[in-house]
Amino acid sequence: MSDSQMMPEYRHDPLSGRWVIIAPDRSRRPLGLSHARPHTRRDAERESCPFCAGREVNTPSESFRIPAGDSSWAVRVVPNKYPAVEPNAQPCDSGSALYQTIVGQGWHEVVVETPRHETNPARLSVIEFTHVLTAYRQRIEELSKLPNVESVTIFKNVGAEAGASLAHLHSQIVTMPRVPESQLLELSRCAKHHAEHGRCLLCDIVTMECQLNVRLIRQTDHFVAICPFASRFAYEMMILPKQHMSRFTEMDAGLSRELAGLMLQLFGKLDSVLDYPAYNFYLHDTPVANTDTASTHWHIKLFPKTSHAAGFEWATDCFINAVRPENAAADLRVAKSI
Amino acid sequence: MSDSQMMPEYRHDPLSGRWVIIAPDRSRRPLGLSHARPHTRRDAERESCPFCAGREVNTPSESFRIPAGDSSWAVRVVPNKYPAVEPNAQPCDSGSALYQTIVGQGWHEVVVETPRHETNPARLSVIEFTHVLTAYRQRIEELSKLPNVESVTIFKNVGAEAGASLAHLHSQIVTMPRVPESQLLELSRCAKHHAEHGRCLLCDIVTMECQLNVRLIRQTDHFVAICPFASRFAYEMMILPKQHMSRFTEMDAGLSRELAGLMLQLFGKLDSVLDYPAYNFYLHDTPVANTDTASTHWHIKLFPKTSHAAGFEWATDCFINAVRPENAAADLRVAKSI
Repeated sequence: MSDSQMMPEYRHDPLSGRWVIIAPDRSRRPLGLSHARPHTRRDAERESCPFCAGREVNTPSESFRIPAGDSSWAVRVVPNKYPAVEPNAQPCDSGSALYQTIVGQGWHEVVVETPRHETNPARLSVIEFTHVLTAYRQRIEELSKLPNVESVTIFKNVGAEAGASLAHLHSQIVTMPRVPESQLLELSRCAKHHAEHGRCLLCDIVTMECQLNVRLIRQTDHFVAICPFASRFAYEMMILPKQHMSRFTEMDAGLSRELAGLMLQLFGKLDSVLDYPAYNFYLHDTPVANTDTASTHWHIKLFPKTSHAAGFEWATDCFINAVRPENAAADLRVAKSI
Repeated sequence: MSDSQMMPEYRHDPLSGRWVIIAPDRSRRPLGLSHARPHTRRDAERESCPFCAGREVNTPSESFRIPAGDSSWAVRVVPNKYPAVEPNAQPCDSGSALYQTIVGQGWHEVVVETPRHETNPARLSVIEFTHVLTAYRQRIEELSKLPNVESVTIFKNVGAEAGASLAHLHSQIVTMPRVPESQLLELSRCAKHHAEHGRCLLCDIVTMECQLNVRLIRQTDHFVAICPFASRFAYEMMILPKQHMSRFTEMDAGLSRELAGLMLQLFGKLDSVLDYPAYNFYLHDTPVANTDTASTHWHIKLFPKTSHAAGFEWATDCFINAVRPENAAADLRVAKSI
């Protein structure tokens, strides 16, 4: 790599509109990367884990289950016991002329991904993770029919450093009564690109990244995983369908299985490259009422927690990333899943 | 407190335009607040601390110093050894039609706040912290004259969980060649409020919060500290001048001293309420070239690290705050500095 490539650089993310600073030299600074190893710390939790088979009474009643023969289950979806929003929330009367409020009404669910006390996503089988993706699709479908649901956000926290409070594998679903501002910005950028070029922005990114082959991590017949050009986080990945697909619910069982296999490989690569880091993923899906499906293309962002956001990031919303996405992709490409 | 006050609620921040979820019930969830106690962990660093008096050769040459008699110093400002941006950065040639880039050119400085190995900001004297604020004012003034400086961001990370890599008290200054998008949004909201009402938005907030007296933490003759109505973080505080003041550099020595006293009390209150948490603060000052100073009003945000941002926050930019700002203000108001 030439010296000029190691210079700090501002990069613009065409999807979010955010600028980031890619500053590779900062990785030499004292703090460095943390190694969370979330899966080696939590055995003490097993005894009282509310998500394990046989302890179903410790969670609220299921809204969905994928059965596994007899009276057993493969995946359960239950209301979150500590919800951020509530189906029966009432107005709080705390607003004023300067301060707007909206009732915190909505559904906050937990997807329990396996009946056994497993804490590392990479150790799920393709069939098991396919079930999880099926549960996502089913809940998006059903929750979208409910009142005041304009947006359904699905996300996963792995390890305490990434915000997980329980180790047993689970993901979360939150409905919102309005589309978040940051996603509205993203959608308007996608619409603008489509109006100007007659093509979907993410389709154009997929085409270019597959041609360039420098930020590509892995591809299957229908999906691709890349390190985004303007990654906010070191080793950030984006996973998306190669062909235009607006909604996550458009996937059939076969595609779900193919995506599950790809994502499990990426989890394993993260474990291999970063020694079992804490990480998050989230799905950006097309909002419920959106009719412009020609410009919107669902995608998943997957990113390890390698450092703490600090005063600069909170002040500017401009993240400093110490690993060039091209280098991250090279590391992840060759890494074996462990 | 009535039950309805405990309901989750979306609140809109008139300054940033961001929505947050105030979900008080979530504070009962397993993870709870972390207690960082950053100041009890770092004694091992003292032996090799590059910021202590006598080790000046371990940092790059000073850009500024406040002397303390003889050949000694009270505050030093030096270039960051692991900079996010560099004065002599060159273009990297990694952009394309889809991907914009800007040279990572700028100044990244460190303000060493005291010659002794002190790690808790609350233990600085008023005179010492006044010197720090004087250094901020002087560096904003000087850096603003340099080429490609459109914005000067000052911030402080206390404790590893808040992003600090060295414990010896220091703050950081980063110049940017453009105003960050999030701050542009803030400025446009301030300009809009001024155009509609003929008054500064933050002046209106100060007036209302002083009248309501429910989110007020403390005030002095010229400054006020409140918990913002739509705080992103538990125990978030905003400190600002009561009378309209556009730029941080407009403060004189007397006001600096008054602000230093107030901020030291707030640091102590944080230590008292949250048992020495990690925390950040940042200054939002009026950008260098901004001529509309009637609508812009500098302010400082100070907030502890009580939980990890998780998948939901990264997906939506909508933060879930488990402590009502009214309750946070009540706790902080009565807390003694320790």
